[in-house]
Amino acid sequence: MNNPEEVLEILLRPIGVIRTPYTTAAGTPIQTVYGRGIQGEVVVNDEYAPALADIDGFERLWLIYWLERARPFKPRVVPYRDSREHGLFATRSPCRPNPIGISVVRLLSHEGSRLRVADLDMLDGTPLLDIKPYVPIFDAHSPSAAGWLDASDEDRKIADDRF
Amino acid sequence: MNNPEEVLEILLRPIGVIRTPYTTAAGTPIQTVYGRGIQGEVVVNDEYAPALADIDGFERLWLIYWLERARPFKPRVVPYRDSREHGLFATRSPCRPNPIGISVVRLLSHEGSRLRVADLDMLDGTPLLDIKPYVPIFDAHSPSAAGWLDASDEDRKIADDRF
Repeated sequence: MNNPEEVLEILLRPIGVIRTPYTTAAGTPIQTVYGRGIQGEVVVNDEYAPALADIDGFERLWLIYWLERARPFKPRVVPYRDSREHGLFATRSPCRPNPIGISVVRLLSHEGSRLRVADLDMLDGTPLLDIKPYVPIFDAHSPSAAGWLDASDEDRKIADDRF
Repeated sequence: MNNPEEVLEILLRPIGVIRTPYTTAAGTPIQTVYGRGIQGEVVVNDEYAPALADIDGFERLWLIYWLERARPFKPRVVPYRDSREHGLFATRSPCRPNPIGISVVRLLSHEGSRLRVADLDMLDGTPLLDIKPYVPIFDAHSPSAAGWLDASDEDRKIADDRF
């Protein structure tokens, strides 16, 4: 067998849920930068509230979540920001083999098991898998060439129903 | 029940594997910025090779992977970059409820199902879950306040065996 790794199965359980104003893909910002100011809530299951200690000092967080309503994997897609097909892994489209989303959001406040957040691009009720602090020295790399995205003149910021 | 989401179980299957020079946590860079220039390989299973089309133009990629050798979840940890305890979600420590890692790496070359990459901070053989292009307008936010990390004078860059 060429790929012994592919027999491994990994079981995840959500740690909570993300509450946003969006109920359908069509009309939802395609990235948090296009959902600037849109507010919502991150609610972790009670057992995880103690793990939020000291999160308040971070201006931004990574939310890692499950794109549960994405359509099945396709190896090539026409992404929102272009009119031509690209390999799925060269895009941020949601129809991935493991549909995991990562989004940078701004932390507004924290109380108990709840975080008030802004700059949202995910659907209401999205299962939350992890929260990590956003750290510029680890995460911010600019300039960094971005292939077809740098060359595209398609300026779409809001999703339609293609995925 | 307060948290209906917690009954959801999500099944993932790795899409490939990450090859790095590191075989034990102790001695591995704690973030890719501290593994600068360290080279390795991303090998996707053959069925996913077509989904790598057009990835070549991206200078950096996100690797999303399974921290399979991390110790079990602890709600509070003393992270590598401080000498005091913090809530797990205010740290990048690997002992998370869903131990998913995200790392920005530099793409050096692409051939078929293989990517040569640099700036590595994960163990050899780490199961790969997803690859996304790094896009500065989506991902680079600087300055962005980073809580205890901004205040710490602990300058550790290489892991020990605590996680």
